[in-house]
Amino acid sequence: MAGEVRSSPCRIAVDAMGGDHAPDEIIKGALLAIEKFPHVAISLVGREAVLREKLGDGALARITIVDAPEVIEMTDDALAPLRRKRQSSIRVCANLVHEGKVDAMVSAGHTGATWISAKTVIGMIEGVSRPALAQVMPRYDGVTLLLDVGANVHAKPNQLREFAVMGHFYSQEILGVESPRIGLMSIGEEEGKGNELTKETFRILKDTGLNFIGNAEGRDIFNGRADVVVCDGFVGNIVLKASESLGEMVWTSLASELSRNPIRKAVGAMAYPMLKGLKKRMDWREYGGAPLLGVKGGCIVCHGRSNAKAIMNAIRVADEFASNHIDQKIRERIGDLHTREHASPLLAVE
Amino acid sequence: MAGEVRSSPCRIAVDAMGGDHAPDEIIKGALLAIEKFPHVAISLVGREAVLREKLGDGALARITIVDAPEVIEMTDDALAPLRRKRQSSIRVCANLVHEGKVDAMVSAGHTGATWISAKTVIGMIEGVSRPALAQVMPRYDGVTLLLDVGANVHAKPNQLREFAVMGHFYSQEILGVESPRIGLMSIGEEEGKGNELTKETFRILKDTGLNFIGNAEGRDIFNGRADVVVCDGFVGNIVLKASESLGEMVWTSLASELSRNPIRKAVGAMAYPMLKGLKKRMDWREYGGAPLLGVKGGCIVCHGRSNAKAIMNAIRVADEFASNHIDQKIRERIGDLHTREHASPLLAVE
Repeated sequence: MAGEVRSSPCRIAVDAMGGDHAPDEIIKGALLAIEKFPHVAISLVGREAVLREKLGDGALARITIVDAPEVIEMTDDALAPLRRKRQSSIRVCANLVHEGKVDAMVSAGHTGATWISAKTVIGMIEGVSRPALAQVMPRYDGVTLLLDVGANVHAKPNQLREFAVMGHFYSQEILGVESPRIGLMSIGEEEGKGNELTKETFRILKDTGLNFIGNAEGRDIFNGRADVVVCDGFVGNIVLKASESLGEMVWTSLASELSRNPIRKAVGAMAYPMLKGLKKRMDWREYGGAPLLGVKGGCIVCHGRSNAKAIMNAIRVADEFASNHIDQKIRERIGDLHTREHASPLLAVE
Repeated sequence: MAGEVRSSPCRIAVDAMGGDHAPDEIIKGALLAIEKFPHVAISLVGREAVLREKLGDGALARITIVDAPEVIEMTDDALAPLRRKRQSSIRVCANLVHEGKVDAMVSAGHTGATWISAKTVIGMIEGVSRPALAQVMPRYDGVTLLLDVGANVHAKPNQLREFAVMGHFYSQEILGVESPRIGLMSIGEEEGKGNELTKETFRILKDTGLNFIGNAEGRDIFNGRADVVVCDGFVGNIVLKASESLGEMVWTSLASELSRNPIRKAVGAMAYPMLKGLKKRMDWREYGGAPLLGVKGGCIVCHGRSNAKAIMNAIRVADEFASNHIDQKIRERIGDLHTREHASPLLAVE
């Protein structure tokens, strides 16, 4: 069963059919991952005949194939894996996690379908109402965890509080932040600033025992004031996509400026290697995938545009997630929170 | 009266007491502006004795001082200019616009107080319910106008539609886009994606006669897919501040990478001049200020952190706004829209 202490190797199901560049880049990413993380055992999930042909005998010895004859298309309804397409690769991945046959799944396919499969097939940690997609954002001196970045268009105050608790643990266990500073995404730092959702959430976040620093503004994602920033998935998704796009725009512009004539090209050739680290830090492909926190087991959601490198990194994230038993730690902490609330009812908190 | 066709010179009231670096940087900015834009007549509004002393006789010959003995502090309520502080610099600036003594005002002070003063003292264009703060965002091949970026925490569908109409005109008249592509900020491009606000707004934006391209994702602010992106001020403010901060983070990191040792410094010294244009394009200070669209007359809101350069550029924006009679053009277009609706009631639109 997902949620138990697992023995090595870490077992990961990879949806071979999801994403703009499936299955080729997914397969390549899986192959890169088994080279780089030899303790990880990968099951590629998708149309068996296709995968078998593309993998070839050498790779087949090191990767397990699990057949899933159906594919969720981007035009499909998010509910497809529960209804018409129960043999789809996303659903089969979720089944494998639920049955304890793997520790985590990775998919670059339909996010809504993955979310639904995670929530209903893998199942939620007791006390968590909805999974939240948590994205690592780069900053000068480290990273900030932003959640939710798109799994939940709406969120209620108690759900944002769950996001905060889950983000706290992920930041602590995976990102190595001892006492993560939790910010509530809003406009204006003062308690009274924001909308109804943030005002009510501010009030209840004060009693979580977390290192709650109050409202965070958009700038606090990148300036190092917070380690975890919570928001609903509507705001989070817009900020995430705007940031990715701005980052890409800056690098495109930079490359263009440093190639407009031979002299600039020469300077560019010297400067590029020095900026490689920064470029890497800004590149979403390096972060691989965003975990869906709150699920019993690991579920890593990748960018639809993921290439082999992104998939490899998502497998790394899945491995870290499973090896550190993040889901169990969240379960324990959410349990604590509910015990606390029982003693001091939510609406009486001050 | 504001809203009439004005004769040169363009007259601008500048709030000398607003912002983190007031009054020194504001004064410097005003002085830079009269050098650079000789057709602009500036009234500096603030504590007369202070301003008189700081300006000196030379500058006094070229700048008018208007006394405003009170200052709105950041801790003040947004309603202060209407109640306790009717002699404040923000309120006096708004009075000047309302009375037609100047064509536009510029303030880096309390945004809420400026918004309230614009809405109630200067007054709204008939048919516009609330002013929207419109920010120019850089992209590779031009700029995108994002509104609202913080004036309205909440917005209703018909208000977002007003923002779209106003943004259309600003983009056309000031940014030189012939047929601005209007996007509705949401998550997912399809009509059904987003929250209740975006779904309803999508429906009514289709009948505005604008070049409505449907939902815009966060990335579409920077990738050139849209010329105007509309959203409520909660989302817009978060995206704006996140983008500014990410931009600053990139440049800080770049400078750090290109100065870590003598060789890198040497490459940096060659590369910097080549990247100056890009840095400038990414720098919010270059955009000066964001106009509050929908007000009868010009009202430019600046960043609280504005320095002299930002103030100078905000005065340029105010000048462009007033010289192009943006408020009148919005008034006419909003009038058209209402006539249209009268013929075809809003809720029957398809």
